[in-house]
Order: sequence, then structure tokens, then C-alpha cells
Amino acid sequence: MIYVTRKAHFNASHRLHNPGKPDDWNRRVFGKCNNPNWHGHNYVIEVTVAGEPDEETGYVIDLGELKAIIKEKIIDSCDHKNLNLEVPFLQGIIPSTENLCRAFFYEIEKPVNNTASKGAKLYSVKLYETERNMAEYCPNRG
Amino acid sequence: MIYVTRKAHFNASHRLHNPGKPDDWNRRVFGKCNNPNWHGHNYVIEVTVAGEPDEETGYVIDLGELKAIIKEKIIDSCDHKNLNLEVPFLQGIIPSTENLCRAFFYEIEKPVNNTASKGAKLYSVKLYETERNMAEYCPNRG
Amino acid sequence: MIYVTRKAHFNASHRLHNPGKPDDWNRRVFGKCNNPNWHGHNYVIEVTVAGEPDEETGYVIDLGELKAIIKEKIIDSCDHKNLNLEVPFLQGIIPSTENLCRAFFYEIEKPVNNTASKGAKLYSVKLYETERNMAEYCPNRG
Amino acid sequence: MIYVTRKAHFNASHRLHNPGKPDDWNRRVFGKCNNPNWHGHNYVIEVTVAGEPDEETGYVIDLGELKAIIKEKIIDSCDHKNLNLEVPFLQGIIPSTENLCRAFFYEIEKPVNNTASKGAKLYSVKLYETERNMAEYCPNRG
Amino acid sequence: MIYVTRKAHFNASHRLHNPGKPDDWNRRVFGKCNNPNWHGHNYVIEVTVAGEPDEETGYVIDLGELKAIIKEKIIDSCDHKNLNLEVPFLQGIIPSTENLCRAFFYEIEKPVNNTASKGAKLYSVKLYETERNMAEYCPNRG
Amino acid sequence: MIYVTRKAHFNASHRLHNPGKPDDWNRRVFGKCNNPNWHGHNYVIEVTVAGEPDEETGYVIDLGELKAIIKEKIIDSCDHKNLNLEVPFLQGIIPSTENLCRAFFYEIEKPVNNTASKGAKLYSVKLYETERNMAEYCPNRG
Repeated sequence: MIYVTRKAHFNASHRLHNPGKPDDWNRRVFGKCNNPNWHGHNYVIEVTVAGEPDEETGYVIDLGELKAIIKEKIIDSCDHKNLNLEVPFLQGIIPSTENLCRAFFYEIEKPVNNTASKGAKLYSVKLYETERNMAEYCPNRG
Repeated sequence: MIYVTRKAHFNASHRLHNPGKPDDWNRRVFGKCNNPNWHGHNYVIEVTVAGEPDEETGYVIDLGELKAIIKEKIIDSCDHKNLNLEVPFLQGIIPSTENLCRAFFYEIEKPVNNTASKGAKLYSVKLYETERNMAEYCPNRG
Repeated sequence: MIYVTRKAHFNASHRLHNPGKPDDWNRRVFGKCNNPNWHGHNYVIEVTVAGEPDEETGYVIDLGELKAIIKEKIIDSCDHKNLNLEVPFLQGIIPSTENLCRAFFYEIEKPVNNTASKGAKLYSVKLYETERNMAEYCPNRG
Repeated sequence: MIYVTRKAHFNASHRLHNPGKPDDWNRRVFGKCNNPNWHGHNYVIEVTVAGEPDEETGYVIDLGELKAIIKEKIIDSCDHKNLNLEVPFLQGIIPSTENLCRAFFYEIEKPVNNTASKGAKLYSVKLYETERNMAEYCPNRG
Repeated sequence: MIYVTRKAHFNASHRLHNPGKPDDWNRRVFGKCNNPNWHGHNYVIEVTVAGEPDEETGYVIDLGELKAIIKEKIIDSCDHKNLNLEVPFLQGIIPSTENLCRAFFYEIEKPVNNTASKGAKLYSVKLYETERNMAEYCPNRG
Repeated sequence: MIYVTRKAHFNASHRLHNPGKPDDWNRRVFGKCNNPNWHGHNYVIEVTVAGEPDEETGYVIDLGELKAIIKEKIIDSCDHKNLNLEVPFLQGIIPSTENLCRAFFYEIEKPVNNTASKGAKLYSVKLYETERNMAEYCPNRG
């Protein structure tokens, strides 16, 4: 099994806020991350595809095509955007790093699996919110 | 001459917008950086002090005290904040990387010079907006 | 399954030495790492917690609370310390990167599991001794 | 289970080209990576060994010995070389990142397993072709 | 004075070789860098422009325009190319890091100066051949 | 003028302590850096040489020879050593980052100037004590 990873970047604003809860709950639970005037991050995303390399190309997936999928599905939707207000597939979720990487996984799963070599599949999506905070969605690892 | 540098981080939202100009001018000049719903960055700041080390301590400046000045004057004011709306000493300027590093220089110049060893002075402030975009304010370099 | 990671740093001195063996065995096996006058490192630790995000917060674990646990249990005990002489929970072990990351895992396991969202658990502790040398303790991965 | 990793670097030229296919197929499939005048990379390799630390040394593997194996088997063969023309154990494969990391794994597997502590084994080889493109060969992970 | 920097990347093959000297001189002076089958690098370039920010935009130079100049003049000419054979403006020079950064400076100087704000000028070009080897051309620094 | 830089690493223990002062002065001034049981760092050193490239080689200095000088004069003396006790040319100085980079400069100045191309000279020595703390000795910059 070979795991191929492509890294990309986007810059966005967000705010941690559960609209089903009162404001003081949000302020207590999320602290400065709940700032109603927003804050933001340089997000780094790493997408990993697992499978066997195609014999004719040596590729598990053409990384140029993987780069194009990440750009079309994630970067173009999220870069220089407000993640709470402006990204259709993130509506209704709290944009924690955990929830974002899971949403990104399902947003790209189908095009990635259709593009990868025979039998290869999307394996994980990692998202760095800062150099020190990261979440990874990897539904099939032991 | 010895140059001592301390690095720090903060996360903020901002928007490039000149309120003295019409909206279409702002959209054309600043592009996606003009998004009215804000975007954000993990800013990295590097503060450099130049001088001779004190003979008793070997320090141009105590980096613990420099860290405390950066924290009090910049991080506490800017971290998880909206740079256009919430930072008193940034009011009235367009928060480009260039303008931010110059404003940060003058915000910390006096406490840094008062804390550094005899004759040592604040030399430059570098600000990384992303890993690829950086500005440095260094008023006395040739 | 989502894996959330928090990174932290500390600087310490140490020496690889097995006190149950003669000095020439130690010099031969550990080489320059056996220097009786100590050497040191900027250690980087990455702590990963695995589980499902809490529905109300979107958190597998509040990274602010995870940061506080790492600080209280590891950074405050090890930073600017001698790992062979001054850290109670490291007494009696050879401070190789392997042994350190395992000891750190068990030092934080209980508070991490008590703090994480329902069902989430400490998954791994990685420790970088240098940029090129790293060990990870991950008892439940396949 | 503890996972120990050692990182190394080499600089090489290569070209993606399947000699069993016509030139226009190669140009279409591999694009600029098919340039007949070659291009090159600063490759970064990370080798991971999994096992239990030896009780007398605290080592899963002596990282100095692992460094020496990587140097003898991979760096000395590949550094400042043309990967298509000059590396005996890469002959007959397309030097994609996927194929390279798998070839490196089998090139070092026997000496690593002979050197590691009792029961420890080579676990994975990661290869970064650029900071954004990476492949990992890890035959036994779930 | 404010210094604004933009970073970019390209991957290329090259060979250090002075065609006016005999082969054994080249082998002795350049060692493995003289390999006739080429080797390669992931080059990182940093371009710095110095000046005063424009009052209406806050920019010393629009970094999007600087990015476009670097792409057109350097990345499109050098990426996935052989620096000895395929880059018109590098013909006749030995592609050492020193010579490359100087050639890049003069290749972009005019368009950068025409694009920057009033009075701002290209200040330096840095080129990293590897993470450990770098050259900077900065003709006007004291 | 071209500035060529080579980076290297070493790991050492040290302690900030002025033996001409009482213990309580040292504890108050240096805090945890005064720990009598030592602490340590992964130091990163960057050596910069300034001059014109030699016409026959394209080199300001052969980086292989610069690497060898740094290894012989600094790495072999300091790596896995105690900087207060075991490095002859550091005796009698407080091993602050400031004092270390200045001492390293004068330790390598003569061999670097003798090895560099005609007219080229050692320009600066930077020393990172941690990723966040750095000092540079650069006696001739404006």
C-alpha cells in the first residue's frame, strides 16, 4: 500500500459559535475564538490517497490532477473567504478544525476516487489551523 | 554590532480597504483581499534589536523581557482580533503587511529601547502575512 | 475517527547512560551521547487525541485544555531541566527519545482522557529530539 | 509499539518516462515531468522502524546505525545522480515518488531488520519530492 | 524604508561545468556537482523590493503583480528545465547559486521597478539551492 | 556584492552564569537559564560570506570548503558538548546567544577569508538558540 500526499494552502476568517446556544455559553466555551468580529488563519491542508501505483504511469494518483481537485473543491471555495458565512458546503457546522477536515474529506472523496488509479481511494485529510494545532479525518485507520 | 531577534505569532482577521475610495476602486485594486466578510492570517512577527551585549549579562536585551513587551503591546492587542476594527493603534491605516510592520515598530520602540542594554535600539520589525509574503520595517539600514 | 494534534516545545539537557553497565560499555554503545558533562536539545512534542467531535462544540478535545495539560505535566517538569536528574517521573529510565515519548504518554493519559469528548482517548505522543530524529509511542495502531 | 524515524536528504535529477510507450503518450501523461533534458529535486527521505526499545540501551534502533544504512544504501547511490540512468536498483522502474519510496524500502529492509532491536522491523519509507508532494510505502498499516 | 518580500519555487536540473576548462579541472573543482548526467534541486527564490508604501494602497508593490512577474520571467523559464541548456538568459554562465541569483535580479529588475510604488526599487534576490546553501544578490547594501 | 550562506547544526548543553557575581544575582537575572544542572539546545548556525564570484568557478566561496571549516572549527568543538566547560575558545565568556555568535565569527574569520575568492570576506554569523531566539554578529553592516 502506498500513500500519496498533496499539500495546499488557503487563508480565511472564521469564528467558533454554536447558534443553538446562548451568547454567554459561546463566550465561555470558545473564549477568544468566539470573537464576533472574526479572526483568521493561514490553513494548510494535506490530502492523502492510498492504493497501488498504476503500472504504466507509476502513479497512485496524478498529483497534478489531485492539485486541481483540491483547488476547485476547497481552495476556490474557501480562500480569502469567511468560513461561517460564505462556503455552501460548510453551512450549519461549527468551523472547528475537526469539523472542517471531515467536511473537506467528503467534499473531495468522489472526484478523488474517480481520478485515482484502479482501487486507490481517498485515505485522509489533515488540516493545520496553526503550526501547533492540527486535525486529521481518517475514517479507515485502525 | 549584534542583532538579536525574537519571533512571535498571532491570528487575526482583516480586509484591505481604503474608505476614502469608492467600492469598485477597492474591489479592483485589492481583489479578493477586499472581501467585506473578512479573511485572516496566522501572522508571524520578528523583532530585532541591535547593540552591544551588556558585559555583566551577555545580553543585548533580555529576550524574556522582549517577549513580554511584544506580548503586551502587540499579541494581546491583535491576537484573535479584527485588525480593521479592534486595534486602537491601527485605526485609520490600511492593514497591509507594510503598514502593519511600521505601526508595530513605533508601538514597541520606546519600551524596547528603555529595556535594551546601554546604547542598544530597536532595529527592525518583520511581519509574515503568509509563508510567502513578508514585509520589514527597518528605518536605519543602508 | 478524527485525530487532533497539539504541538509544544521544551529545552533540556540529558545524557544517555545505563548506570547498571560499566563506563566503557556506555562510552562504546552511546558514543558522544554519553558525555558526562551533558548535552541538550530543543525537544518538540506532538500529542494526538482520537475520537469523535462533540456535537455542541465541534471539539474532540478543547486544544486550550490540551495545551494546559501538556504544560502542567510535561513542559513545567522538563523545560530548562536535566532529564536524568530533575524530572521525578523519568527517574530510573534511560532518556532515549523512545523512552521519553512513552513516559510522556503515560504521564498525560489520564488527564487527557478525562478532558476529551465522550469516548475520545489519547492516541499517540511524538517526540522530536532533533529535526532529523523522532520517536512516536502509539500503543494501539495496527 | 514505538516508531522511530530518521530523516535524510539527497539531490538528484530524473525524468518521468515509460520507455514502453510512444513519445507523445509520455508527453501527454507526464507533461513537464517528461522533459528529455531532465529536471531535479531536493529529495527528503524519512525511514521509520517499529518495535520495542531494547532494555539495556533504550533504543528501538541505534539512530547512528540507521543513518549509516541510509547513507550507504540510498544517499551514496542517489545523491547528485541521475535516477533514471545511474542507480542500479532503480533500473527498469519509472522514478515516480511512489515507485522510489517502495524501491528504497526493499533496498534497506534487510540491513535495517538485522540492526534493529529484537523483533523491531522496518515500518515505512516516506519520500518528499517537493515540500508539497510526498509518497509513503508502508506495507503493513491497516 | 520598507522591504517587501515574495517567495516562489521551481524544480530544475543543472551541472556545474566551465566549458573553457578541461574535464579533469572541472571534476576536481566541482566534484559531484560536475556529474555529466546532471543533478537537480528544488530552488526557492525570495525577491525583495524596497521603498515607501503608496498612500492610497498601503503597498510598496502589489504582491500579486510581483508574483506574476516572478512567474513570467523566472518560474516559466526555469521550472522543470535544465538550467545549463534550456534557459536563454542563463546561457554562457556557470549555474552556481551565486550566478543564478545575480542573473535573476537583472532579469526582473526593470518590470519590478516599473510596477512598484513611486521610488521603490528591486533590492535583492535570494536563492536557496538546498535548505543549507543560499546566495543573495543585493548590489546596494552597505 | 553577493552574500553566500551555509547552515549547520549542533546540540549542546549550557548555563547562563556570571561567575563574578553572587548566586542570587545569577538566579534573579538569568532565571531558569541559570539552572546549575544545565539545559541544552539544538543550535542552528548560519555563516555568510560576502564578495564577488570567482570568474572561473562562479563561487564566492566553495560551499564544500566552507562546510569543512564550520565542521572543524565549530561543530567538532561544540556538538554534544557542554559550552561552559568543554570548548577552549569559549572559556571566560557567558554563553549567551549574543556572545556565542561573536566568538564563532572570530574563530572562523581567518580560515574563511583565506578560502574565499579574491576580496571576499566573512560577513556575518547567525545563531539560532531556539526557533524563536536568534542573534547575529555582523560587524560591518550599516
